[in-house]
Amino acid sequence: MKDGTMTTATPILFDCDPGHDDAIALVMAHRSPAIKLLGVTTTCGNAEVEKTTTNALRILEFIGAGDVPVAQGCHRPLARPLVLGTADGPSGLEGSPYLPQATIKPVKQHAVDFLADALRASPEPILVVATGPLTNIGLLILKHRDVLPKIKELIWMGGVFYRRSEIITPTEFNAFCDPEALKIVLDSGIPILMVGLDVTMQVLIEAPQYAELATIDTPLGRLVNDWLLFYEKLHRNSMGVGGAMHDPLVLALAIDPTLVRTRPVHIGVDLSGSYAFGATVADFWGERGEKENARIAHEVDADRFFKLMFDLLRD
Amino acid sequence: MKDGTMTTATPILFDCDPGHDDAIALVMAHRSPAIKLLGVTTTCGNAEVEKTTTNALRILEFIGAGDVPVAQGCHRPLARPLVLGTADGPSGLEGSPYLPQATIKPVKQHAVDFLADALRASPEPILVVATGPLTNIGLLILKHRDVLPKIKELIWMGGVFYRRSEIITPTEFNAFCDPEALKIVLDSGIPILMVGLDVTMQVLIEAPQYAELATIDTPLGRLVNDWLLFYEKLHRNSMGVGGAMHDPLVLALAIDPTLVRTRPVHIGVDLSGSYAFGATVADFWGERGEKENARIAHEVDADRFFKLMFDLLRD
Amino acid sequence: MKDGTMTTATPILFDCDPGHDDAIALVMAHRSPAIKLLGVTTTCGNAEVEKTTTNALRILEFIGAGDVPVAQGCHRPLARPLVLGTADGPSGLEGSPYLPQATIKPVKQHAVDFLADALRASPEPILVVATGPLTNIGLLILKHRDVLPKIKELIWMGGVFYRRSEIITPTEFNAFCDPEALKIVLDSGIPILMVGLDVTMQVLIEAPQYAELATIDTPLGRLVNDWLLFYEKLHRNSMGVGGAMHDPLVLALAIDPTLVRTRPVHIGVDLSGSYAFGATVADFWGERGEKENARIAHEVDADRFFKLMFDLLRD
Amino acid sequence: MKDGTMTTATPILFDCDPGHDDAIALVMAHRSPAIKLLGVTTTCGNAEVEKTTTNALRILEFIGAGDVPVAQGCHRPLARPLVLGTADGPSGLEGSPYLPQATIKPVKQHAVDFLADALRASPEPILVVATGPLTNIGLLILKHRDVLPKIKELIWMGGVFYRRSEIITPTEFNAFCDPEALKIVLDSGIPILMVGLDVTMQVLIEAPQYAELATIDTPLGRLVNDWLLFYEKLHRNSMGVGGAMHDPLVLALAIDPTLVRTRPVHIGVDLSGSYAFGATVADFWGERGEKENARIAHEVDADRFFKLMFDLLRD
Repeated sequence: MKDGTMTTATPILFDCDPGHDDAIALVMAHRSPAIKLLGVTTTCGNAEVEKTTTNALRILEFIGAGDVPVAQGCHRPLARPLVLGTADGPSGLEGSPYLPQATIKPVKQHAVDFLADALRASPEPILVVATGPLTNIGLLILKHRDVLPKIKELIWMGGVFYRRSEIITPTEFNAFCDPEALKIVLDSGIPILMVGLDVTMQVLIEAPQYAELATIDTPLGRLVNDWLLFYEKLHRNSMGVGGAMHDPLVLALAIDPTLVRTRPVHIGVDLSGSYAFGATVADFWGERGEKENARIAHEVDADRFFKLMFDLLRD
Repeated sequence: MKDGTMTTATPILFDCDPGHDDAIALVMAHRSPAIKLLGVTTTCGNAEVEKTTTNALRILEFIGAGDVPVAQGCHRPLARPLVLGTADGPSGLEGSPYLPQATIKPVKQHAVDFLADALRASPEPILVVATGPLTNIGLLILKHRDVLPKIKELIWMGGVFYRRSEIITPTEFNAFCDPEALKIVLDSGIPILMVGLDVTMQVLIEAPQYAELATIDTPLGRLVNDWLLFYEKLHRNSMGVGGAMHDPLVLALAIDPTLVRTRPVHIGVDLSGSYAFGATVADFWGERGEKENARIAHEVDADRFFKLMFDLLRD
Repeated sequence: MKDGTMTTATPILFDCDPGHDDAIALVMAHRSPAIKLLGVTTTCGNAEVEKTTTNALRILEFIGAGDVPVAQGCHRPLARPLVLGTADGPSGLEGSPYLPQATIKPVKQHAVDFLADALRASPEPILVVATGPLTNIGLLILKHRDVLPKIKELIWMGGVFYRRSEIITPTEFNAFCDPEALKIVLDSGIPILMVGLDVTMQVLIEAPQYAELATIDTPLGRLVNDWLLFYEKLHRNSMGVGGAMHDPLVLALAIDPTLVRTRPVHIGVDLSGSYAFGATVADFWGERGEKENARIAHEVDADRFFKLMFDLLRD
Repeated sequence: MKDGTMTTATPILFDCDPGHDDAIALVMAHRSPAIKLLGVTTTCGNAEVEKTTTNALRILEFIGAGDVPVAQGCHRPLARPLVLGTADGPSGLEGSPYLPQATIKPVKQHAVDFLADALRASPEPILVVATGPLTNIGLLILKHRDVLPKIKELIWMGGVFYRRSEIITPTEFNAFCDPEALKIVLDSGIPILMVGLDVTMQVLIEAPQYAELATIDTPLGRLVNDWLLFYEKLHRNSMGVGGAMHDPLVLALAIDPTLVRTRPVHIGVDLSGSYAFGATVADFWGERGEKENARIAHEVDADRFFKLMFDLLRD
């Protein structure tokens, strides 16, 4: 799929916790000619980090991306006990009985050091895409602040701005898992685009999407279909909607930033509170007198997103 | 307007901080044959308590309800500094140049003691309607716990459950003002129906409502029109929508409970946090293992509500 | 004991939660010619408020002070669940088998309203002595702010400034019970003298004090001896010291303010935190840039205090 | 000074933020035949990490320990903004005009990775001594949990248990700087001995200690004297006492654990709160029902400590 346009491909580093939707995003990242996937780092979140690493390796090998380096990262949030998501099942990638175990291995380096070295080695600032809790990125900022100017932008799936979440937490799961890491990121001065749950919940896999997927009669197409059938259970049972393509949307923005509209704003994150820690509170009315520290996505062009996604899943 | 059906009217105590929308609710309470307005108590919120008391008196006298006792309540929240709303202007009832000053006076009793005595004096439990911060009700629970069995239900305009608020605070203003009072109420065991901002933002005064109001060519109709023109400014400027009939909806539920659907749930309220204190977090999925402590409204029949409201404003 | 010097006696209002040491303070207040005891109000703390009220009535009647009005106050802290002290036993005054039940009754008024009326009725500002959690005083400030100028000073047993408490809580029990009430008091602008646990733990009943008490061979002397034998158990078992005369010291300061040295300081109180809520943090170095909001006691003349106390217990 | 007894020397890793008292501890660690100093890691705290690193290098080179590897660590706490101590002056080691700049350099590795590799390389568990905020140790636990069994014990200067601190913060400075790191350490299960401020404030440099130091007429003796004259200013001005040998005492415990008595206890640390975050609250009475997670020092034999310290400073 990748072709001669590679010279113009955007290099990215991808920090994730696969997870079904992370998995689809990984596939998209590898297959898009607009993306050069420099490496994958893993964190805990949808499952323990050993499992998300295993999942990343299995996916990459299956799609012929076994040469993409994978570095395992943090096994727990910075300052909170580990809480695991439930949408992806115990393994983090339930519904993959026919996906072979990986023969490839992660690199020896810790994700945080891998990210730092990759950023240092690049002549140009690099786009970092993150689809899990921000533990690795927070640690990168703490341990390797010299590389921060090398981060072109961090595009993160996380936070929720206009609604409350109903998935596991009243805030959003990635923010809930490691609010301290999010605070470090927000205070760091790196450019950040937050794609909140209220936006990602607008790209849902419903009947038309299943129909489209059914036209992709390949092992990959069938695998993705199996994933989605498992993955949608939580959404369907609790909210009556299909699975949300949280992470594929975020990855898609590395390919086509025009899929969403964005606005700059100051985001505060609450670290205390019994129920609402991890709340990402946008100062829409400029009442805090604080400098904007992020852009947030609003309004997504769902049709164009799905076209992009399915084109990349198709051979 | 009131007639021979009074024997079946529901007696209510009305705790409020007028406020334009409280003012309309007061008018409705007085004019509805289904309601017997036993007394009005005032709190700070939309304006200082002296102003909300003055406003209550002016309104009641203007509509010929000068015999309804008004008792002034708390001048500040239980454990937080006073923060005033801005939607209603400095006086709390801007846009009323032709509304005469009141000649009637509040009773000598503090609102909290007035409520307690009124509840004690009643042979039957009484419905309490509250449309401001819950300071008076919280204090009532602290100081007069013997009367709690006399509260049939507390219907409160407050909290927000599915969205974040964009009006002044990321949570909802009444909850934000006095979250400690809300906590006392939620822990008290009294039956409570919370009508959150996400529901009240569905009954907006837009062109059709202004047109309907224009057909009420009375001093009252013109006064309400003037109020609404002032009141909608904040909503229009910040969110592009008309004024929300928060408090009239709550009062209307004392007349016709079928205007909304409700569900029982456990509500937690956060007291700490930099941004999200006052967050009212409903345990929709029953994950906390705590007993339901409130019903919350969802889905409102806006058309039927507006019919009820305009019928009561019309002679 | 009271004599012709009464015209110069200092009028006081005494808010307490007897409690053995409160009980001794009550005796001292009644017996000192330097004090005119205008009334006693009760709060929860050492025991439930019904019990502390009963205890106050029994003590006052026993010492011939049955004409001093007693008003019962709050049954729970403002914004926290009730936590009871354990030093004084289940009744709050264990070790009093020979103390008769009271025939006198409390006044009908709630403590908060009694305090307000007593302050309003006085031509001069009045000293308020408080030896329990500050719930009643906090509520007084919320509900009757017009009387605040009538409070000459609040002398309170509470907080701890140079040490941590080892009695029940790492902070000090009265502050721990109702930190929100303390915050209201500290922000109110009324003059306040805080006598912290680190000072009151310097007036301990040890062998010399028991010996002195043994010379007071009266029913009262024997009752106090019985009280102290019960009361000291917690101190003796946990810290190896005798019972601390927390509240008698505070009352003694209404008679002789020179028993302690004091310094003005800004006191902050923490309302959140898992362990240290209620922490009273003095800004000794003036780092906060905030105006002093209290005086705190330091250095006590224990010998002179005990002389004063025993003189008042002796006929 | 070191001699043939080296085969029985205790290997240690020393994480510090010199800092005058850290500096003296470094000297002691190098000179004691009972200690084998495997490496020094630096953190921010008394000064920025670049300065504490520079200070460590200068001291080590000056005392002929230029072969001890030094690894620079974190430049900021995990989840809080950097706050610097003031006792040691802007450079962190004011009062050292004659101390030459270092020619030796830190190793390339980050402190956290250096610690991990050193622990992995050792056949036996190693004692870790820490005298600054616990950021590096917290990060070690997050990033390299496989090495935790290699930590024989962590001896830390930090917390305060029976008193409040008056130095900069109401809690203790090292705990105040990075309470989240402390929480990670306390929850990690590694053996920890906390030497709190209430204990270290009992080993003060007063006239007898200055006199003893005056007998050490060597360049090192004079340097230490100069350090102490600067270092004591904060203590003398604010509390009227000489400089406290916080860190030398902690290092001394690696040589002679009998200098203090210890007790096991559960320590909680507060992460929220306006004033008391970082409070280290020992459950002396076992009320929490939680397993002991640390030993804390109490009662120090100051005379024996000073003898040990001065013996090591003397040739």
